[in-house]
This record gives sequence, C-alpha cells and structure tokens, in this order.
Amino acid sequence: MHSLQVDLGDRSYPILIGPGLLGESAHFTNAIRGRQVLVVTNETIAPLYLEKVLAALQGFDKVDSVQLPDGEAFKTLDTLNRIFDTLLERRHDRSTTIIALGGGVVGDMSGFAAACYQRGVDFVQVPTTLLSQVDSSVGGKTGVNHPLGKNMIGAFYQPQLVLIDIDTLTTLPDRELSAGLAEVIKYGMICDAPFFEWLEANMDALLARDPAALTYAVERSCADKAAVVAEDERESGRRAILNFGHTFGHAIEAVQGYGKWLHGEAVAAGMVMAAELSRLRGWISATETERLRALLTKANLPQQSPEDMVVNDYLQAMSVDKKVQDGKLRLVLLHAIGDAQIVADTPKEQLVEALRACGAR
Amino acid sequence: MHSLQVDLGDRSYPILIGPGLLGESAHFTNAIRGRQVLVVTNETIAPLYLEKVLAALQGFDKVDSVQLPDGEAFKTLDTLNRIFDTLLERRHDRSTTIIALGGGVVGDMSGFAAACYQRGVDFVQVPTTLLSQVDSSVGGKTGVNHPLGKNMIGAFYQPQLVLIDIDTLTTLPDRELSAGLAEVIKYGMICDAPFFEWLEANMDALLARDPAALTYAVERSCADKAAVVAEDERESGRRAILNFGHTFGHAIEAVQGYGKWLHGEAVAAGMVMAAELSRLRGWISATETERLRALLTKANLPQQSPEDMVVNDYLQAMSVDKKVQDGKLRLVLLHAIGDAQIVADTPKEQLVEALRACGAR
Repeated sequence: MHSLQVDLGDRSYPILIGPGLLGESAHFTNAIRGRQVLVVTNETIAPLYLEKVLAALQGFDKVDSVQLPDGEAFKTLDTLNRIFDTLLERRHDRSTTIIALGGGVVGDMSGFAAACYQRGVDFVQVPTTLLSQVDSSVGGKTGVNHPLGKNMIGAFYQPQLVLIDIDTLTTLPDRELSAGLAEVIKYGMICDAPFFEWLEANMDALLARDPAALTYAVERSCADKAAVVAEDERESGRRAILNFGHTFGHAIEAVQGYGKWLHGEAVAAGMVMAAELSRLRGWISATETERLRALLTKANLPQQSPEDMVVNDYLQAMSVDKKVQDGKLRLVLLHAIGDAQIVADTPKEQLVEALRACGAR
Repeated sequence: MHSLQVDLGDRSYPILIGPGLLGESAHFTNAIRGRQVLVVTNETIAPLYLEKVLAALQGFDKVDSVQLPDGEAFKTLDTLNRIFDTLLERRHDRSTTIIALGGGVVGDMSGFAAACYQRGVDFVQVPTTLLSQVDSSVGGKTGVNHPLGKNMIGAFYQPQLVLIDIDTLTTLPDRELSAGLAEVIKYGMICDAPFFEWLEANMDALLARDPAALTYAVERSCADKAAVVAEDERESGRRAILNFGHTFGHAIEAVQGYGKWLHGEAVAAGMVMAAELSRLRGWISATETERLRALLTKANLPQQSPEDMVVNDYLQAMSVDKKVQDGKLRLVLLHAIGDAQIVADTPKEQLVEALRACGAR
C-alpha cells in the first residue's frame, strides 16, 4: 500500500492507494470518529462494490446506504436532497460520517452533502474511477451543477481520508479509463514535465491496465495535485492552474448537455484549445501542441470541438464560468510542457483563432 | 452609531448599530470588496426598504435584487435555488457580494447562498427584525429547513459586515417585536444576569419602542452572543448554550408546521420548559422560573406548550434535533439566571415532567 498526505494544517488528510483496500475494515475504523456511517453510491457501482464496503463497516452502530442515479445529469440539488432525506429518515446525527463510493459525481455530491448536513459532518472518499482517483478526490472541491453552469453551487470541504482501491479500475469501461487519463496528462502538462515523458512512454501499459503502471500514475497525479492544493486551498491564486483546459471543457459540457461528453473528454479537447492559444501567443511551439495531440490520440481522447458547436457557443458559455473575475476571463496557458500560468488578458481574436484551430466554426 | 467587533481571527467582522444606517452608501462601500452586489429580500420588506438600499448601492457596477416569498415555510432548498437562478441569470461572478435585507429567514438563506455560490462569495447582513438583529445576524449560522428538521442543511459562514438600522424596528409588527425579545431575554438567562435585571426594569420602554432602550438591548445582546461565538465558532462545545430553549422550541415549530408559531414564541415556551427541567434537577429555584415567566408575560410571550401537542410529539421531534450526539440528547440547563450548562444525561422522567409542567399532555 502506498500513502501520501495532503497538507492543509488541521484539515490535512491521508490518501491510501493500493489493491483491495475498500474491503479492509481497519482503514475505515482508523479514520472514522463516530459510530454512524452512510455510504452514498450509485446504481452502477452498488452491484459491484457496495456489499464489500458494507461488510467492512460491520463494526459501526448504524450503517446505511443510498443509491443515486448514475451520471452528471443527476448532479443536482434535487439528487443532493435524496442524501439529506436518507440521513434524516435514518436519524443520522452530527457525529455521522458520509462515505462516497463511486466516481466524481458521487464524490462531489457526497462531499457537498457532508459540508451542509447539520452544517458539516465527516466525510471519506472511496473513488472508483480513474478520474475521481486522480482529480476530484483530492483538494476538497465539492458541489452540484445548475442548469446555467457546472459546479456553480458547492463548498470547499476536506475529507478525513481518501481510500483508492486500484482494483476498482478493472471494472471501469474503456471510455472512462481514457477520460481519467485526460486529467493524468493534465498534471504532466501544467507542472510535471518528467511525468509527461513517462506517460508518453507508458500509455500502452496504462491502457492495458497494468496495475503497477496505474498505481504509479495515480500516486504521482495525487502528489502533483496535493502539492498545488496545499499551496492555495481556496483557489485564490495558483490553484487555478488545475483548471487547465477546463474553462473550454466546461463550455463543451454545458452546451452539449451534461453527460453527453464525459468530463475527461471535454477537458482533453479543452486542453488542446488552451495549448493552441498558448502557441498563438508565442509561448509554446507547434512541436509541443503536437506532443499533446499525439499523447491524447494514444489515450483515445478527442482533440477537437464537437462538430455542432460554433465559436459563439464557447464565448457565451465561458462568460459565466467561475474563472471569470470582475468581468475578465481568466485562462490557464502554458510557457512549456510542465509550466502553466494564469492569464486574464486574452485578446478575443486569439481566443477565436484557437477555437477555430480545434474545429469550432 | 455604536459598533462592535466579532472576533474570529481572519473571519472577524464589525457590527454597526444605529438609526438610518441602511441608506448610507459609505457603510457598503467600505465593507464590499467587489463591484457586483445582489440584494436578497422578501415581499414584505421590499416595499419598505429596498429602494433606499438600492439607492445607497448606486456606485456599484452591477446591482441586482431578488424578492423571496416571506416566511419560515419558504426557507427551503427550492427557495434557495431562486437566489442561485438570479445570480446566474444576471451573470454574477465570484467577486459578487450578497446583501441580506430582511429577517432571520432572509439572512439564513442569503448567507447559505453566499457560502455555496461558486463555493463562497462575500456577504453583508442588514437585519430588519429584532430577532435577526440580536440573534441570526451574529455568529455565522446559515441554512435552510428540511421537511424532517429545522436548519438541517447549512453552513457556518461569516459575513463581511452586519449593519443594524434600528429605525427598521418602527415598522415591525408587535408580535414580531415580542418574538425578538425572547432571544434578548435568553442572553440574560444564559450568561448575563445584570442584563436580565435591566430587562425586568425596562421591558415597558422596549415595548414602547424607545430608541435608546432598543439600541442598548440590541447592542448588549450582540455583544453577549459575539463573546460566546468567539470562544467556540463551530459549536464544538460552549456555543451550544445559545440553544437554551431551542431544542424544545424546534420541536414546537416542527410539529406545528414552520411559521405557525414564530421562532421567538417557540423559544419562549422552550425556555420555560428548560427552566422547569433545571428546577426539577434542583439547580434553580421556583423563584427563578417565576421571574422568567413574569418577564415573558410582560413581553407578551407564551410560556406553555401548544394545546394540541402531547409529550410524545416532543420526544419524537427532539430525537432528530442537531443537539443529539451519538444518540444522546444534549440540553442547556441553568444553575442560576445567567449561568447555563450543557448536559447530556437528562432522565426521561424529568423531561416528561418538565413538559407536563408546561401544559404538554
């Protein structure tokens, strides 16, 4: 088992990574302070892992579970309310711990429910997708979508523990594995050039689900993200580099309707847009955008805008993105692979040209 | 103008108290960091004060407002969503400030909306009822109700400023003035015996809305509450004394349906129940419960259970109250007027007897 610590003062917590972890009681009993637990999962994950987790929780006084519908389309206040319904119907008090068993949607909603239930209860993440293991389970961003924007309602809320059972990746559909790799590639792009090179050399092993390669990629991604988050927990500055490709990606998700493109797929195309914009600005070369495109191709990820989206769709959607501050669009661009910077002065013409370079009409 | 500081490290904020404050631009411009504001109010308060506040906000770039339906019955996730709708439709970004103009319901929902919108934006309270001035605007508790329990969904979130315009009390209905006085009396009961005596001597002046008496009562209440909150912001211990009478009061509100009894009225009856329980325990004398009853009578507040509530209604409702921890009911009892303590070992028979002493069958 590998472990690393996310350093956030009195909100610090460990991430444990290894095979078979979600069935081992000790990890839960060590981290959970109360005697009540609610496992939040979804209809896809429940048949695969819920029984195993409930067995590992046998020692607690009150063990309940709730199954949410699967998918980003259900990441809403209404679905969130189902978690509150269960907590109240089953009379969970302030000492309860919410355990998120599932991907990013389950994690984001469970974490937000934990942040809000009785103004805050404990929270453990058991992410079961590559995307949630390397991204959403680290850093404390929780929340739900609004019809007018993604993740617009939420909280910064840290878990007591993140338990990454690498075995769960064996049941992950190919498309979701690839979507998770988009965020893995992102860490290489924004702050870890040696990791980017490692990914260029090891993408085949990752797609073949080689456990050692996956463990390494997950651990290195978590460590990269944890370092950025430790510097700037509430995203007042540098943490925003983690949004590389995301402002474009959110526009794709919002316009296409949540769930049609997977988050990682939208981010993949968004990273190419941000890279092209960096190139147009004269910061990186065409060689570097090509390396990104080649790695994404290897990972079976898109690099182009959805065919039916026009430039104006992006401009409109991006103007309500959270990265807008006092009316200025803030984007993450690259000086080199591994060296990102936040800018607020993108000329509209360059933005349009970058979008066109990625197929937006 | 009187001012006091709520001491919470980097979340400290000032409370300004005086006549005419809500029409004075300088208070807003001094406290608000961004260029966008959303005033959240309700249909009752809007005709009285909204225009004045909007005039004071003229200097900002983006000034919007939203009117919620009036009443505790609307303190729900659905109503909360109307605030998010407005923020997103009007394209408010992360630099926006939400201004709560109204009573406790408006304040609790606005504060919670501020805590959640884009994971946290700034927040200013302009409380217009006595209850919200002395209670809900100090201490950062925000949230909404759930059909199965009051304030079950929320956050601890501190404002940048609380602006108490004492003139707003001139338009407050008598019944709401009295309801506010319940919380004022509470501070005397739990931590400020000299203030309790002052209230015994000055209740007539308060009911006659003497501005000097009201200003003194508001300022002293805020100072008492601020001192308790500064010691224990997240209610891990002593802060819970502020819930004196509230566990009973919440039961009354929950069973009667929110809004039928005003919060302060329910708390008044609840304080008598808690006082009777303290007496049964041998902590305070019948003289002290009588002093409380006499002062509540003077303030036109109830001291008895609603006629249609039976003992079991209380026991059932109280078992889901937030003050339950690991299955134990935590209550605030009194050693003397001005000296409260939290206990978790109330014998059920004493609880039942105290409820009966207040008319529950």
